[in-house]
Amino acid sequence: MALLDYFRQRKTTGSAAIAKERLQILVAHDRRGGGPSYLPQLKNDLLKVIRKYVAVDNDAVSVNLERDGAQEILELNIVLPD
Amino acid sequence: MALLDYFRQRKTTGSAAIAKERLQILVAHDRRGGGPSYLPQLKNDLLKVIRKYVAVDNDAVSVNLERDGAQEILELNIVLPD
Repeated sequence: MALLDYFRQRKTTGSAAIAKERLQILVAHDRRGGGPSYLPQLKNDLLKVIRKYVAVDNDAVSVNLERDGAQEILELNIVLPD
Repeated sequence: MALLDYFRQRKTTGSAAIAKERLQILVAHDRRGGGPSYLPQLKNDLLKVIRKYVAVDNDAVSVNLERDGAQEILELNIVLPD
């Protein structure tokens, strides 16, 4: 599965640089219809859900939302507390 | 940003094959400490959150959870209704 390979690669190259516990969430929405995007609101819901399990500072979250034609990608990178 | 490049690539190769509106969610957890994994429970929470925005059949969801050493990856692929 190519996507999992990607993460595995990333782990081996990235873990030496930042030895922190981390959580990365990616949401890719391939849209057909119109209507407003719900990814910005979904981002807040996702953080709320994550905080059920771990304490996450606002400072520890970086968010990226991109649109490229019919595709939207939401990326959340969270550095977890030690 | 390499990860976004990956999604972009995926879109152009995959969209011709399956012309459905889709949502893909990836959660990668680089763990340091012990304790039980919360990704299986998080999966249920994520689906609950997604259902706030779109009607999702159970049949339309495929789930994959992998562990590789200190890293866990949860993958949700959701085919959205037309």
